[in-house]
Amino acid sequence: MSADNPLNSPTTRRDFIRRGTLATLAIPAGIATLESCVPAKSAAAKAASATPAAPAGHEAPAPPPSAEAKAEEMDAMHEAGVKAFPARTEGKGNQLLAPRMDRGVKVYDLTCSEVQWEIAPGKRMKAWVYNDQLPGPQIRVREGDRVRINVTNRLPESTCVHFHGLEVPNDQDGVPFITQKPIKPGASHTYEFTVPNPGSHMYHSHHNAAKQVGMGLLGAFIVDPKDPAADPKVDVDAVMILNDMAHGYTLNGKGFPATEPIVARRGQTVRIRFMNEGMQIHPMHLHGMHMTVIAKDGWNQPAPWKCDTLNIAPGERWDVLVKATNPGTWAFHCHILTHAESEHGMFGMVTALIVE
Amino acid sequence: MSADNPLNSPTTRRDFIRRGTLATLAIPAGIATLESCVPAKSAAAKAASATPAAPAGHEAPAPPPSAEAKAEEMDAMHEAGVKAFPARTEGKGNQLLAPRMDRGVKVYDLTCSEVQWEIAPGKRMKAWVYNDQLPGPQIRVREGDRVRINVTNRLPESTCVHFHGLEVPNDQDGVPFITQKPIKPGASHTYEFTVPNPGSHMYHSHHNAAKQVGMGLLGAFIVDPKDPAADPKVDVDAVMILNDMAHGYTLNGKGFPATEPIVARRGQTVRIRFMNEGMQIHPMHLHGMHMTVIAKDGWNQPAPWKCDTLNIAPGERWDVLVKATNPGTWAFHCHILTHAESEHGMFGMVTALIVE
Amino acid sequence: MSADNPLNSPTTRRDFIRRGTLATLAIPAGIATLESCVPAKSAAAKAASATPAAPAGHEAPAPPPSAEAKAEEMDAMHEAGVKAFPARTEGKGNQLLAPRMDRGVKVYDLTCSEVQWEIAPGKRMKAWVYNDQLPGPQIRVREGDRVRINVTNRLPESTCVHFHGLEVPNDQDGVPFITQKPIKPGASHTYEFTVPNPGSHMYHSHHNAAKQVGMGLLGAFIVDPKDPAADPKVDVDAVMILNDMAHGYTLNGKGFPATEPIVARRGQTVRIRFMNEGMQIHPMHLHGMHMTVIAKDGWNQPAPWKCDTLNIAPGERWDVLVKATNPGTWAFHCHILTHAESEHGMFGMVTALIVE
Repeated sequence: MSADNPLNSPTTRRDFIRRGTLATLAIPAGIATLESCVPAKSAAAKAASATPAAPAGHEAPAPPPSAEAKAEEMDAMHEAGVKAFPARTEGKGNQLLAPRMDRGVKVYDLTCSEVQWEIAPGKRMKAWVYNDQLPGPQIRVREGDRVRINVTNRLPESTCVHFHGLEVPNDQDGVPFITQKPIKPGASHTYEFTVPNPGSHMYHSHHNAAKQVGMGLLGAFIVDPKDPAADPKVDVDAVMILNDMAHGYTLNGKGFPATEPIVARRGQTVRIRFMNEGMQIHPMHLHGMHMTVIAKDGWNQPAPWKCDTLNIAPGERWDVLVKATNPGTWAFHCHILTHAESEHGMFGMVTALIVE
Repeated sequence: MSADNPLNSPTTRRDFIRRGTLATLAIPAGIATLESCVPAKSAAAKAASATPAAPAGHEAPAPPPSAEAKAEEMDAMHEAGVKAFPARTEGKGNQLLAPRMDRGVKVYDLTCSEVQWEIAPGKRMKAWVYNDQLPGPQIRVREGDRVRINVTNRLPESTCVHFHGLEVPNDQDGVPFITQKPIKPGASHTYEFTVPNPGSHMYHSHHNAAKQVGMGLLGAFIVDPKDPAADPKVDVDAVMILNDMAHGYTLNGKGFPATEPIVARRGQTVRIRFMNEGMQIHPMHLHGMHMTVIAKDGWNQPAPWKCDTLNIAPGERWDVLVKATNPGTWAFHCHILTHAESEHGMFGMVTALIVE
Repeated sequence: MSADNPLNSPTTRRDFIRRGTLATLAIPAGIATLESCVPAKSAAAKAASATPAAPAGHEAPAPPPSAEAKAEEMDAMHEAGVKAFPARTEGKGNQLLAPRMDRGVKVYDLTCSEVQWEIAPGKRMKAWVYNDQLPGPQIRVREGDRVRINVTNRLPESTCVHFHGLEVPNDQDGVPFITQKPIKPGASHTYEFTVPNPGSHMYHSHHNAAKQVGMGLLGAFIVDPKDPAADPKVDVDAVMILNDMAHGYTLNGKGFPATEPIVARRGQTVRIRFMNEGMQIHPMHLHGMHMTVIAKDGWNQPAPWKCDTLNIAPGERWDVLVKATNPGTWAFHCHILTHAESEHGMFGMVTALIVE
């Protein structure tokens, strides 16, 4: 690890991440802007290339780049991506949504709308989201809570909200024409139920859902158990929502290097709640430490088991614990490598677990 | 859920499903026929559209449909599909095959042939099947039974039958040129063995199998344990065979809305035997209740575990129990949403668990 | 099984396999050479076809082959593939690499280079490999050993070696620009660490890895536990590395019929260490006997469980035991049938477990 990478400086790393700024990043010489960190040959990388340009006005084509020059160019693109991580982008999803209280009922307001979302630095794409963020705001309640969720549809097509994993009464299940009529453009609908079962769940569209969930109508719905002692005590509690549709390969609505690292101090316990809202499996691989799998779809496993690569299928949630024993910055990525790296560098489903 | 949907009427729902008729369905106004419930813009849906037609003889093109009109049209297509469920189609697979007894041997006759199979209303496709049904007839025996299976090949190419999951003697394993010669067109072959191990197994072609299984040469082979007490007592015992090849995304040989719902009374226990005969994973998601996984490939899991989304890979069988505690009609579908829904409505790998 | 298949002769089978020769194979009449055993219509199969050729100088096109002739031709292609198994090809991967000892340190030298690799008989393809073999040489050490791995890069682009599953210190993790600078073409790099955790692990490139691993920069890194009693006693210990990228569907760098069977005597216990270095899942199905799953990613499962089809996702390792109780030659293949068979016969991810 090169000494000029701020990720290597334990005294500044946490501050750096918290500030979410690129100001302290040591940008390699010749890389003035990082316009594209996703698989497209960046101007920065081109500038870093050793390929000589053809003189202006000269008719002969430039000689093809040497193998050495191509190798240098590839390395420069990879380095630029890593050095940019964690890159600042506009917008942050999965922010905890505080409820309003109405006579003992926790009330949440969700508005569906179309926004431009910055997936990676400079890469803005149309997204359909809840409350202007992707993933939608995190709803976090306790088993037995009474909740009311007001949904307003500002999209050009009808929608519905399904509480994936929650065993709600049938008429609150959010399936158009089976349990309710869809929520028309401009209309609103209210869901209300007593939170039935604990665990890591999701809410998302269940109408034209291959499109609507793919475009971003999704979020985490986490239910803490009635008895807090039923859950393991953890120091860091992270959600990692996987998606692979309209916005490419993303973790919590961002692609590398705009993904957010998970940061823990040595000795701490990290809980990660994987949720797959995409259409493909994603076997997430953690370097340097293993994961202990404790729950599937919000239900505790009969016995925890260990792995370093956890295959997460669409619709599944898996909860794991990681004991942060091994200091350093550890790659954490989908092991379908085409979801994580190209000749232009790492992209998509890559983040890091940083143990300080 | 709208009141005019017969699925909502507890007193008529079960009769309705048993009769397998559309007669009592409340077809939305303007939807005279339901020619296509799979992803193709149906005439019904077109009729339901608010888009004005261009007057005959007028040269100006019709204005593009408004966003509102398009949203209405999409909703109408979705509604038509749901209202049609469970749609009547010709042919039903996985019917229990009664054996002939020959001096203590249970004898089954299987004939392979080509038929036209109605996957969804009005959608007939060429299929290669056993005994004119897709999936083939269910063979259900007890551990230790002696069985004889006479296979006659009426297909234009050779075939072989493999008993997937059964630990039969090598010469009964059905692999061409390794354990036997293929069964030529017009020829017959007899398999005979003592049923070795209990569980949810399958029989299918093992010759040119990517094509032959994809075309429908498959069925359930269920073995009850010698000691009936070794199995959980259940009220409903359902098979769900997944396929994704020649006939699109199907459950037991049908695509939504022609799939058959699973029906249980409140408090009953349902066993579902998932079997994947396709080439892709299918994470099956049940709404409203969880599944308790009890067996993998016919072998009991060391400890049952719970989930609401179960990832089923090609060749796998998973047995689950569902306690029917939550009344209503619950969507039950593959959570690779592109296997279950398009802008034209739900299709393919969608069914329902109906708790009365 | 036909009597002229040497696989059926228990007295010669083992010798045959050990010699790795085709000399004793009974080639069907008319099949003089087996130029292609992968999905392309082989000359052998064409020769076996009953289709009459159009007479020379005659203008009328040849009549299309009859259904019977096509069925015969398909069977001949299937038979030729099976009869050729296990086919001799040049090169063998996963050979145990003996370390040099340097004052208590086990020293391994790995050289990355480009070679032509024979995937299946006559099918040579460009590969990027360690020490001229695919998979790279097997590194097998004991928990607590001190190891040093010298990597020399003779490829036209930079590389890095990641020890997938090993909880090494961060600076030995092999991720370019995060834990080290990439190893440039012509350069060398040394890794050294004390082997931290036992189990079935892997080493592979972590730079431009979708390409480099896909091209063959991968190998098994097996760590025996410090206490030998912690591992089950087995008679046969096999590695099965799955890949699906540059060289098609392969097991240990070869496609059927060039794959190597696993051979055991009746009553013996076989351990199989599945490792997926590809980009797709591969549900491996064993005929005739079940597998008892004992470890995931090198970590013992809390309770062993049984199956006959094990879904292995990219980056995962699964260890299973098979009790060789059922004599015969048993197909053992990926149950995504398109990875294992076409109309031209079996290919790719097919091998056999032979119980003598």
